Amino acid sequence: MISITIIGSGNVAHHLINVFLDLTENQANQVVLEQVWARNSSYFSNPKIPFVAEIQHLKPTDLTIIAVSDHAITNVSEQLPFKNQLVVHTSGSTPLLALSTQNRRGVFYPLQTFSKLKAIDFSSVPIILESEQQQDFDLLQKIAELLSKKVVIMNSVQRKALHVAAVFACNFTNHLYAIAEHICQTHEVDFQLLAPLIEETTQKIKSVSPLLAQTGPAKRNDVETINQHLSLITEDFQKEIYQLLTQSIQEYDKKL
Amino acid sequence: MISITIIGSGNVAHHLINVFLDLTENQANQVVLEQVWARNSSYFSNPKIPFVAEIQHLKPTDLTIIAVSDHAITNVSEQLPFKNQLVVHTSGSTPLLALSTQNRRGVFYPLQTFSKLKAIDFSSVPIILESEQQQDFDLLQKIAELLSKKVVIMNSVQRKALHVAAVFACNFTNHLYAIAEHICQTHEVDFQLLAPLIEETTQKIKSVSPLLAQTGPAKRNDVETINQHLSLITEDFQKEIYQLLTQSIQEYDKKL
Repeated sequence: MISITIIGSGNVAHHLINVFLDLTENQANQVVLEQVWARNSSYFSNPKIPFVAEIQHLKPTDLTIIAVSDHAITNVSEQLPFKNQLVVHTSGSTPLLALSTQNRRGVFYPLQTFSKLKAIDFSSVPIILESEQQQDFDLLQKIAELLSKKVVIMNSVQRKALHVAAVFACNFTNHLYAIAEHICQTHEVDFQLLAPLIEETTQKIKSVSPLLAQTGPAKRNDVETINQHLSLITEDFQKEIYQLLTQSIQEYDKKL
Repeated sequence: MISITIIGSGNVAHHLINVFLDLTENQANQVVLEQVWARNSSYFSNPKIPFVAEIQHLKPTDLTIIAVSDHAITNVSEQLPFKNQLVVHTSGSTPLLALSTQNRRGVFYPLQTFSKLKAIDFSSVPIILESEQQQDFDLLQKIAELLSKKVVIMNSVQRKALHVAAVFACNFTNHLYAIAEHICQTHEVDFQLLAPLIEETTQKIKSVSPLLAQTGPAKRNDVETINQHLSLITEDFQKEIYQLLTQSIQEYDKKL
């Protein structure tokens, strides 16, 4: 039986706890969520979660997953009341070296946007692994493959680059959707009319590089349309974003 | 039989010609693509396309669709060798009034990102209509509903707002994908690892407003991660975009 500890109460911890509880219930997987700790325990209303009140009471397990805010990783890893165990964090942008040397260190980064509001099919979430020792990597890989079909090894710099790319491809695109929704609402237009367009934009890049898939007034250098759009936009930030992204599209185009 | 004329050789014209050729071949639809004209005729290698060599040779048809660059719409509409026919353009950001008054005016705007490289399921493309006369609207609606399940009426300002929103939700998000791909390539990371994340980001906004779905370091005001990301980014435009979108996410957050 592989025993797991999860630390944290945020979005990633929430989803990991759920997926490891499922694995625990299905005994065939030989994984058990042994204990959970979080500074903020108020959220753990589920009686199935083996919650431990104090971090000092945590026992050594085969794997401890620290799923807390990036800035808290070092501190939490230093507070663990055991040594020489395998301890990983789940952060895209934090180096493995941020973990305390008192335990064997690794990274277990699920590349997905998690919010408590929405269920996730974990099997399609790429899990990015890093470890210092081959034996630890083998265990991480075994556990990751119980959760996901896509398990990848990367060093800390590559993982950070992937995380930056994810911020552009996910956080920032979502913000552009928020701006699009705001513009639609301002003019009493149904934002959901854009759904097929959004869908097509994401489908297209599965077969065509986004660089080649680019369309629109910036790509065409259609100055008249660009100016008409700018005159319709009333919010300063929206206007700045429109201008900067238009310029950037045109810069990229020069490189093609 | 409803007779159709299409003018243009760009992406929108290309897809409209194909879909109307299909309707023409299926006689049951009672629509016939009667004639096609474009300034640049070199692209019309398909012998099924009823190409007319000179704009002056175009005959009146029930509907003439001008699918040319926005800046050419007025000029093309003035060159048409007939009067009092129904003539529409396909532009999101051009007012109906840009069309010459010598014919009855309307708009037939298919809201999708078209490229010749990729086939489109037209039935899921919203078509936005505008006309000056009810009778013309009825015909446009009849034709649009042969192509699409989603047909909507809008005035010119609403349509322009929708087009601006589409630039944010499609052209600009695609550019962010291009940046993400560039960052991945720079660090020898597989860009397609981001596919499930991109998919989830777009799926989420079908049920949750993008304003509420926002995640990431900007949303959390995670200054350390933001600075680490900025230090990894080497391209100036990427850095500027990262900073501006981070600020904008935080501005929006204040309004919540």
